[in-house]
Amino acid sequence: MIAKKMAKYVAGSSVTRAMFEEGKKMAAKFGAENVYDFSLGNPSVEPPKAVREQMIAILKEESPNKIHGYMNNAGHEEVRQAIALSLNQKFGTSFGQKNIIMTVGAAGGLNTILKTLIDPGDEVIAFAPYFGEYNNYVANVDGKMVAISPSIPDFQPNLVEFEKKITAKTKAVIVNTPNNPTGVVYSEDTIKKMASILEAKQKEFATAIYLIADEPYRELAYDGVEVPYLTKYYDNTIVGYSYSKSLSLPGERIGYLVIPDEVDDFENVVDGATIATRILGFVNAPSLQQLTVARCLDESTDVSAYDRNRKLLYDKLTELGFACAKPQGAFYLWVKAKGEDDGAFVAKAKEFNLLLVPGSAFMCPGYVRIAYCVDPEMIKRSFPSFEKLAECY
Amino acid sequence: MIAKKMAKYVAGSSVTRAMFEEGKKMAAKFGAENVYDFSLGNPSVEPPKAVREQMIAILKEESPNKIHGYMNNAGHEEVRQAIALSLNQKFGTSFGQKNIIMTVGAAGGLNTILKTLIDPGDEVIAFAPYFGEYNNYVANVDGKMVAISPSIPDFQPNLVEFEKKITAKTKAVIVNTPNNPTGVVYSEDTIKKMASILEAKQKEFATAIYLIADEPYRELAYDGVEVPYLTKYYDNTIVGYSYSKSLSLPGERIGYLVIPDEVDDFENVVDGATIATRILGFVNAPSLQQLTVARCLDESTDVSAYDRNRKLLYDKLTELGFACAKPQGAFYLWVKAKGEDDGAFVAKAKEFNLLLVPGSAFMCPGYVRIAYCVDPEMIKRSFPSFEKLAECY
Repeated sequence: MIAKKMAKYVAGSSVTRAMFEEGKKMAAKFGAENVYDFSLGNPSVEPPKAVREQMIAILKEESPNKIHGYMNNAGHEEVRQAIALSLNQKFGTSFGQKNIIMTVGAAGGLNTILKTLIDPGDEVIAFAPYFGEYNNYVANVDGKMVAISPSIPDFQPNLVEFEKKITAKTKAVIVNTPNNPTGVVYSEDTIKKMASILEAKQKEFATAIYLIADEPYRELAYDGVEVPYLTKYYDNTIVGYSYSKSLSLPGERIGYLVIPDEVDDFENVVDGATIATRILGFVNAPSLQQLTVARCLDESTDVSAYDRNRKLLYDKLTELGFACAKPQGAFYLWVKAKGEDDGAFVAKAKEFNLLLVPGSAFMCPGYVRIAYCVDPEMIKRSFPSFEKLAECY
Repeated sequence: MIAKKMAKYVAGSSVTRAMFEEGKKMAAKFGAENVYDFSLGNPSVEPPKAVREQMIAILKEESPNKIHGYMNNAGHEEVRQAIALSLNQKFGTSFGQKNIIMTVGAAGGLNTILKTLIDPGDEVIAFAPYFGEYNNYVANVDGKMVAISPSIPDFQPNLVEFEKKITAKTKAVIVNTPNNPTGVVYSEDTIKKMASILEAKQKEFATAIYLIADEPYRELAYDGVEVPYLTKYYDNTIVGYSYSKSLSLPGERIGYLVIPDEVDDFENVVDGATIATRILGFVNAPSLQQLTVARCLDESTDVSAYDRNRKLLYDKLTELGFACAKPQGAFYLWVKAKGEDDGAFVAKAKEFNLLLVPGSAFMCPGYVRIAYCVDPEMIKRSFPSFEKLAECY
């Protein structure tokens, strides 16, 4: 009796989350220390100490109705202003309060901006492999998802196919760099080429094509690699940000959208996104968390811990003969499935208590994602299992 | 260049929220103490002291990754269990953890359950006057809103028209008691009649019709009036709850859905709602707030403060010749617009710095809503303005 639209989701469910639940069951059966759960992007590094200190300080200093009351649907004005100034300092941009809309995480932000921009039948492009939830977010507004094939083995965006698949109906392009699931960071050169293709296609079709930069992993970059700030390369760029990873607050659902003055139809996009936040039922980003992140703009998570995990896992798996894309960012290792079938490979891995996510969940079969935002001791304990897995092929 | 669907929202915008913004501008112009803003349901009473104490205790006692990390999309298991037991104690129900899904406020809960149940074209019934956002929530899933005419002057649900408007396509009915905007509480007798109509129609059409009880105002009831718990009267009842009013936490976006075992297609409804929470971009209810409300289940806001406001305003406006429905619950006074046209009446009131919301925003022209969740001193200061307003007619 549930909606037919939902019944297919219930039948399919999310591979990632199903794995999360299964991991809990296996932990109960085998003991938590004997299950190696690499399935979920749940940060293992604690939030910076300042987060807790500032949260407590706010609770002690500010009036409860200010902390917990309603505010403008777009968020607290002073929070938005502080974020704008912080971005300007970091990236040489010139945002103000009016360019920032606080959102219920990046997922809330993406749904908000898609609701604002997409009419039924409008096309949204993403580069495989990509976060499978994009399909659901686009379906929420009856948009049409257009996937660009993966570029193997470097997993940089396939710009040749991209250029061909842009049509007069293309309303938005979602990019995610550093990337989930590959860990790839798009270079400045790539961004410039992508921007120039978009500029040309906007002219060709006399349309506006919005580039949506989904950036929850911005701060998680290694080896000194630069992550270009996309609003500087293409006017019609909207950034979706989240503090889930940068401050290890994924359960708190706090992030923001950046809508620069330069985007087409700026006033309507801002007004539309503010209204979309409300009518989608978010209403506003959680208030205490807004006030907290505004006090922690110069804080960041301990990236070096993820970096150590990255090296530990990459070196071991490479040594065992697995083909891995060396990640430059995020906290995922993207590995070619032995035997080609990622589903069968994931099932085989589970026999050794290794929980991985099949690439099919990211529109890229034949690979698996290994999330290394975990306890390094678990990584070490998992090595005999990876050895056994390697021996199967 | 925004979506055509959104453009109409931007043009129309929300009357309530527009008023909120206007109030801020007027306060800047005339001085905050000379503007009487009765437009928004933003609780004036502070959260119980325990809320702050428990929030700080959690931050000090629990591990940061537990407090702020991801959990099951349905919410922390122990929080859901604690809420279930608390409901069982209060209402003699027999819920367990599996019956509770934590949501991003009641608005998040309503959108989640509508996404779960409603296919395009399915009909959703609500009784005018009702919270105007219901229209938007139903439109989000391409459902068809069916409004039942107001029953004047008592504003109890019009059950005669209700019975006639239920069709084979009716998938859900939304009720809101205590009611926004009228303050009316549905009696047990009314609930029983409504349930029996629904039972008969389910049989007639061989369908499941879900009764969605939107209950953010449950604890705000006056004069000892009883607010029946609807799951006890009709099996296919789903409750949407929020702590926005009961604990004065509207900006934190924390609430839950109750999906009893007895609802049709129970397992799929629960699974569907858990998935809907995720794919709509809520992901999960804010984590710290989940943990906080679980520690404050026996706390409640100071209803007596709202009760004093209610009497103050009701007595004065009645004395001035305004026809008011005496509210039994919530924190709104529902007043007949002098001169019949609620828009003109609201405009006239604004000349005296009184900010009210027209009944049209609640699908019931000819009335206005006055929110009395405000400082009682503001109510007293506003009296000369109400006197001048009365003199205009």
